[in-house]
Parts: sequence; C-alpha cells; structure tokens
Amino acid sequence: MMRIEARLKELGLVLPAALQTPPGLRLPFTPARVRGNRVYLSGAIAIEADGRPSQVLGKVGNEVTVEQGYESARKIALGHIAALQRALGDLDRVTAWLRVHAMINAAPGFNNTPAVANGYSDLIIQLWGDDAGAHARSAVGMAVLPLNAPVEIEAEVEIDA
Amino acid sequence: MMRIEARLKELGLVLPAALQTPPGLRLPFTPARVRGNRVYLSGAIAIEADGRPSQVLGKVGNEVTVEQGYESARKIALGHIAALQRALGDLDRVTAWLRVHAMINAAPGFNNTPAVANGYSDLIIQLWGDDAGAHARSAVGMAVLPLNAPVEIEAEVEIDA
Amino acid sequence: MMRIEARLKELGLVLPAALQTPPGLRLPFTPARVRGNRVYLSGAIAIEADGRPSQVLGKVGNEVTVEQGYESARKIALGHIAALQRALGDLDRVTAWLRVHAMINAAPGFNNTPAVANGYSDLIIQLWGDDAGAHARSAVGMAVLPLNAPVEIEAEVEIDA
Repeated sequence: MMRIEARLKELGLVLPAALQTPPGLRLPFTPARVRGNRVYLSGAIAIEADGRPSQVLGKVGNEVTVEQGYESARKIALGHIAALQRALGDLDRVTAWLRVHAMINAAPGFNNTPAVANGYSDLIIQLWGDDAGAHARSAVGMAVLPLNAPVEIEAEVEIDA
Repeated sequence: MMRIEARLKELGLVLPAALQTPPGLRLPFTPARVRGNRVYLSGAIAIEADGRPSQVLGKVGNEVTVEQGYESARKIALGHIAALQRALGDLDRVTAWLRVHAMINAAPGFNNTPAVANGYSDLIIQLWGDDAGAHARSAVGMAVLPLNAPVEIEAEVEIDA
Repeated sequence: MMRIEARLKELGLVLPAALQTPPGLRLPFTPARVRGNRVYLSGAIAIEADGRPSQVLGKVGNEVTVEQGYESARKIALGHIAALQRALGDLDRVTAWLRVHAMINAAPGFNNTPAVANGYSDLIIQLWGDDAGAHARSAVGMAVLPLNAPVEIEAEVEIDA
C-alpha cells in the first residue's frame, strides 16, 4: 500500500467525494491544475464525505467558533488531498507542499486567523511529515467568502513529474 | 497568423493599451514578470481600450451589479492578455494557464464571488480551450481594492521558454 | 563581501532576528520554504530588530497612517530578506523576485493600498536593482490581519539552485 494512503487509513480518515456544486453556481475551473512538477489547488471550502458543502457557515468570531473554523480548515485539507488523489492517482507523488494561502471569513475584530488555518497545516504535516509537509503560509481575514463559508484555502504542491 | 491572435480577431476582441496610471499613483512593479517558463501577472483592475481605469467603481452587491462585475473580470482578462502580448510578443507562447486569484470588492453579505470571477475564466477558456485554458482559481471577497475597483485579479501562466 | 549584504551595509540596514512568536500563537509552517529554484515566503507582518512584532497596529486609514503603513511594508521586506538569509546563507543566491502579494488591513473607504505596498517594492528594487528586483504585485485591502497588524505580505523568489 502507498505510504500516504496507509497513513490516512491508520488515522481513520476518509477522503471526501468531489464537491457537489450547489444549484445556480457555475465553476469553470479545475480543482487541481497539474502541470510539470506542480499542482495548483483551487480555493476550496469545507465539504462533507459526500461532497456537499459543510453547513457550518458564517464568520469566525461570530456564528462560527475558532474550533469550528479549525475543523473547517482540516476538512479543506482532506478535500484538497482528495482532489490530488483524483488528479494524480497516487498521493506519494506529492513530494513537497509549498504554499498555503488560508482565507478566513472573519468577524470584525477577530484576528486569530492563524489558529483557524492550523487545522489545515496540522493535517498536512501529520500525513507528509516535517520535511515534505513543510510549507509557507498566510492566514488572513476576508470580507466575504463564497456561500458564506467560514474558510477558503488555496495551495501549491510539488510532484514527482 | 498566430492562433490566439486569430481567435481574438474572430471574436471581435481588441486588446487594451497598457494601464494609464492615474495621477498620484506610483506602481513600482511590472505588469507581467517573465522568468523561465513562467509569467506572473500582477493584480490588475479593469481598463478601457485606451488603458484608462474603467469607471465602473464600487462594491459588487451595492453600486456594482454581478453582471457589471462579470464584465470587469472579463476586461481584466483582456488587460492581462495584452500584458502577456507586450511581454512575450506572441500569445501562442502561453502553453498553459495555471492559477487565477480573483479578488472581489464585495458588499457585506454579497457572496456570489464565483459568478463575478467567471468573466475572467470564461474568456481564458474561450481563447485557449479546455486544456491550455484550464486553471486553478479562487474568488474571494475583499474589504477594499485600489481605486475602489470592483474586481482585481492576479494570475500565473506557463510559457514556452 | 557578497553583493546584497554589502548593499545592506551601505544603506545602514540591519536584518531583524526571526519572529518572536507571541504567547498563545502556534505557527506550524516555515517562514521560507525552499524547494528547487524557488523560495516561497510566508505571509509576514512587520517586526523590530529583535524579532518582536511591531507595535504599530490597526487599520491603515484609521489608527495607522499611509506613511506608517509604508514603513511596515518596508520592515516586512527586511524580515523576508532575513528569512532568506537564514534559509540560503547567501542573499546573492536570490536571482529574481517574482511575485509579491501585499495585504493591507484597510479602514473602510481607504483604497490607496499601492502606496503602502510600495514600502516593500522600493526596498527590494533598491537592493536587487531593476532587473532581479522586478516583480509582479497585488496590493489589496483585507478585513482583518493576524495580531491586528496593518500589513501582511507573502512573496515568491527564484534562486540559484
């Protein structure tokens, strides 16, 4: 069995299905753009196992707690990993995480955006380890996010091409 | 005639002049940073054919409709393509679109940011096709944008180096 | 002596220590992710010589003036350069600046975000010159930033690998 897939199983994690695009939304872009030794991962929101957008919605610091925001970021990581698996076949082809840009739907005055983004970073490092999983990151507060999601994250990884 | 230039002509599209920087603004960066097999396109706002910033200004969801936002995003695509042409000479050198980061000046509560960013994605795919034109994308809501523009977009493309 | 280090000395500039993470904050990512011929620089806020976050805090256009915002952006550039030096040993290995994404904690109605980001761009160009220092850039207004910082900037550079 492949290393990352085995690690996911060990941790009891199941990758979600692809996003079920809500009615009325048209998304003419690709979740994982593969090119040469790079994959560019589109800005994604948290989805459930069946691909439906999470119903935890709103601004972190208002309707959404930091803990829920952390969990959303973790679900986004799982969704990104699922997109990588569909695009690459084998997650061991991801040789290095490079850049993570975490965007938090932040209530006025809420600025603990790093604590939210940690849900993404922690899972990546847990799965890929301190070397391949290391990444540059920003975690910043947005005015609004699509569907009123609390978190949206985009990322870039290196692959074995 | 080159393929993308021919397609632009077919569609009756004319590329705009370079941005006429408004008085008082100093922009010490390059619209299209070419290096190796990459071009990094600076965050751009919508401009008219003569390079003047579009006079459609304000927040999408307030003063600016979704349709006007879509049109702004489309004009930004044309401006980016014009910047690529000035930097590369030949648009057929763009072998793949990679990453599009669309930033929407969003009114509180307006979260249909993808519908706005589609103005950019649709034109890129119309011109480059489903393969070379495919791209990862984020479309998120900002608190403010330069000059009170409704949309600003940055992007990254692969070129034949 | 190396070229960029000599230039820093000429200009009387001292690189700051690494960020002293404030109590209660956990940042499980790397300030400078080096991989192949790229370094991805994490979103950083302004720090003082000893690595403590600058005490100039708040929204540009309210508590923070454009001039203070410019100075914050310049300090972020120094912090990024310090991170590059720690990661690479020798700053002359940075052969080209590529992309700068400047995020401004903007008061409602404040949209002169480029004037703030110029503090970063001006220093990079002063040190690396018009060719290697040229970069694509966005300068946009955020709802909130970590620690209520007025500016956060992430960047990407090319290195001699």
